[in-house]
Amino acid sequence: MENQWETLQAWKDHMAKELDTVISFWTDYSHDQEYGGSFSCLSRMYCRLYRTVERFRRAELLGAAKPGGEFLIRFARVEPPAKKCAFSVTKDGTPVKVQRTLFSESYYTLAMNERWRVTEETRYQNEAVEMLDRIVYWVRVDSSELSWTRFSRTHKAEDLAVPTMLLHLVDQLQEEDEEMSKKYAELEDWGVQRILKHLQEWKAVLDNISEDGQGLPGAFGREQNPGQAIEAGRYLLQDAQREGDTQLRDQVIDKFLLLPFHSGWDAEHGGFYSFRDVDNWVPHRLEWDMKLWWPHCEAMIAFLMGYSDSGDPTLLKIFNQVAEYTFCHFRDLVYREWYGYLIEDGRVGLSIKGGLYKGCYYNPQCMAMCEQILGALLQRTEDSK
Amino acid sequence: MENQWETLQAWKDHMAKELDTVISFWTDYSHDQEYGGSFSCLSRMYCRLYRTVERFRRAELLGAAKPGGEFLIRFARVEPPAKKCAFSVTKDGTPVKVQRTLFSESYYTLAMNERWRVTEETRYQNEAVEMLDRIVYWVRVDSSELSWTRFSRTHKAEDLAVPTMLLHLVDQLQEEDEEMSKKYAELEDWGVQRILKHLQEWKAVLDNISEDGQGLPGAFGREQNPGQAIEAGRYLLQDAQREGDTQLRDQVIDKFLLLPFHSGWDAEHGGFYSFRDVDNWVPHRLEWDMKLWWPHCEAMIAFLMGYSDSGDPTLLKIFNQVAEYTFCHFRDLVYREWYGYLIEDGRVGLSIKGGLYKGCYYNPQCMAMCEQILGALLQRTEDSK
Repeated sequence: MENQWETLQAWKDHMAKELDTVISFWTDYSHDQEYGGSFSCLSRMYCRLYRTVERFRRAELLGAAKPGGEFLIRFARVEPPAKKCAFSVTKDGTPVKVQRTLFSESYYTLAMNERWRVTEETRYQNEAVEMLDRIVYWVRVDSSELSWTRFSRTHKAEDLAVPTMLLHLVDQLQEEDEEMSKKYAELEDWGVQRILKHLQEWKAVLDNISEDGQGLPGAFGREQNPGQAIEAGRYLLQDAQREGDTQLRDQVIDKFLLLPFHSGWDAEHGGFYSFRDVDNWVPHRLEWDMKLWWPHCEAMIAFLMGYSDSGDPTLLKIFNQVAEYTFCHFRDLVYREWYGYLIEDGRVGLSIKGGLYKGCYYNPQCMAMCEQILGALLQRTEDSK
Repeated sequence: MENQWETLQAWKDHMAKELDTVISFWTDYSHDQEYGGSFSCLSRMYCRLYRTVERFRRAELLGAAKPGGEFLIRFARVEPPAKKCAFSVTKDGTPVKVQRTLFSESYYTLAMNERWRVTEETRYQNEAVEMLDRIVYWVRVDSSELSWTRFSRTHKAEDLAVPTMLLHLVDQLQEEDEEMSKKYAELEDWGVQRILKHLQEWKAVLDNISEDGQGLPGAFGREQNPGQAIEAGRYLLQDAQREGDTQLRDQVIDKFLLLPFHSGWDAEHGGFYSFRDVDNWVPHRLEWDMKLWWPHCEAMIAFLMGYSDSGDPTLLKIFNQVAEYTFCHFRDLVYREWYGYLIEDGRVGLSIKGGLYKGCYYNPQCMAMCEQILGALLQRTEDSK
């Protein structure tokens, strides 16, 4: 018991220290004083840290987040007043790439809502709500604005990332907000049900299923993305927690945490594979055997949350295993921040710290959430003494 | 001299034998008797082999190519009469994915023209010419049909694959066709000039440049794709050959063959890297250090062609080096056909033989072209005895 307390305390210290280190990297290097954006969008992360972590309530963080939010609200949308956002823009805000998905718009929504929470400027919250409503329209009514072909014969599939992202957005907007909690209660249920459909035959969480929840033929249909499944799991866990539904909780731990861990963890070299084929064929994605930072972040949060909710020591053991691999392999001890992309054996594959898909986001979010969960766990242990 | 003759003869035999083996794999496994397509489009390759290689003038090859062509002309276009084609379809022809590029339409054009050459049905040639004219319109006049956003501020870039593909199409349609040679003469010049603009400061062939031929900032602007540069080089070589322009030939050999070979070849493990950064940063593509089959195919053709045109023994030496690596690492000696994706050290990364980007195309094309060039070289040696 004492030993376990020490483990939790040690990890909490690690998380806090690493969070500080990581954020110092981004505050040092990523702000664009000239145009007000930042080289990889920070607004939501800075605002959130400023708002929720005592020691980050610092003027310079807010000072950097403010022009970041201004830049976003001004330049992110490609053809305002239409809602479609750019995936990447040049430093002066010229769009470079627009994806045919809803993820740029989703991260934009997170940033807008968080910015509103910190500065209370209502135009940010209006923007967040309008955008979420448009995203929901794309997902549930008509997605043709995301693409330009309206051919009706298309073979449609649902990516697990879509309902997971919707739960993430709902979670963000509902936080301590009764009006939003009510507004999006039905959407939350919908998202939970859609995610659960990706668990096929109780045997595997598949990344792509048909719109009516059936398996798909071919390599796409056999695709498993362990990080995505575990990320979905942690939103389901939060839902089970809110509802006090222990049956759902146990089912989620079993099928959305342990199952993807066992099928996705590389027993030989450690780390999560990016993709696995449910029938053990070789996945068709070139990067399938690479170890990416974000599934490890999601897994640390999910297993710690699962342990906190259930008390099952297996989950703490897995958290330890994932956290040890992650701290050992992804961190750049000399120049700070994390590498994002390792090759199969754990060596660094790409030495970039920021890129089109990696910014000041997954790892600081993970550190902040783990620090918070560990703090609460330690407090509970303390209280029960 | 005798020794060199033996080398050429040995490679010619290898190429012919491998071509037969590879084609037997696809005839055995890829035809869809039910719907008439094939699992990875074969029409052009079969028609071309039937038409140009004596020993493939076999009824079963034509018998397979015919329903393949029917399937394509019927199902490839997503919203006929509009020209946009699907990148992938289900076996009954339902579109699954449509790319925002012109490559699906280009391969369709190649297939339509080749099908016409073999069966003389004019609707195939009409389709080829109409499609090429539309592609040219997209590239040179207005690309908005390829995308759905018409925002004008976009940061535009030209990918080396685009003018290279245009030269490929022109080359296909002009073959023994005076009318087409005349029709597309100006386009050919345009393509050559655009490719040459990708050679920046005489130092490197860059994959992405601005529309007016300038370098671009950031990781995209620093990107080199050795296979793409060498492929562009072989179309330039063909142009220099036709024009009898030995100055262009020498420049192309120097800058579009030798330069990408030296910057792209992995001196430690052998094989071409997929991407290199011109300033030696780590490329931002996850698969940058993988060895893909098609750059090796393009390099074998280009270096053999360069040797045949110039007689420079360095080029034959490099052909040997690339061909030895390729025959040793990519072929599946037991089950036939080639692997497409190796990891850096040359081991198989993905064991698939066909996929969304790999079908019966690059390697049989390479074998057939190398066999033909080697045959001509041997004949020349024979004649000069």
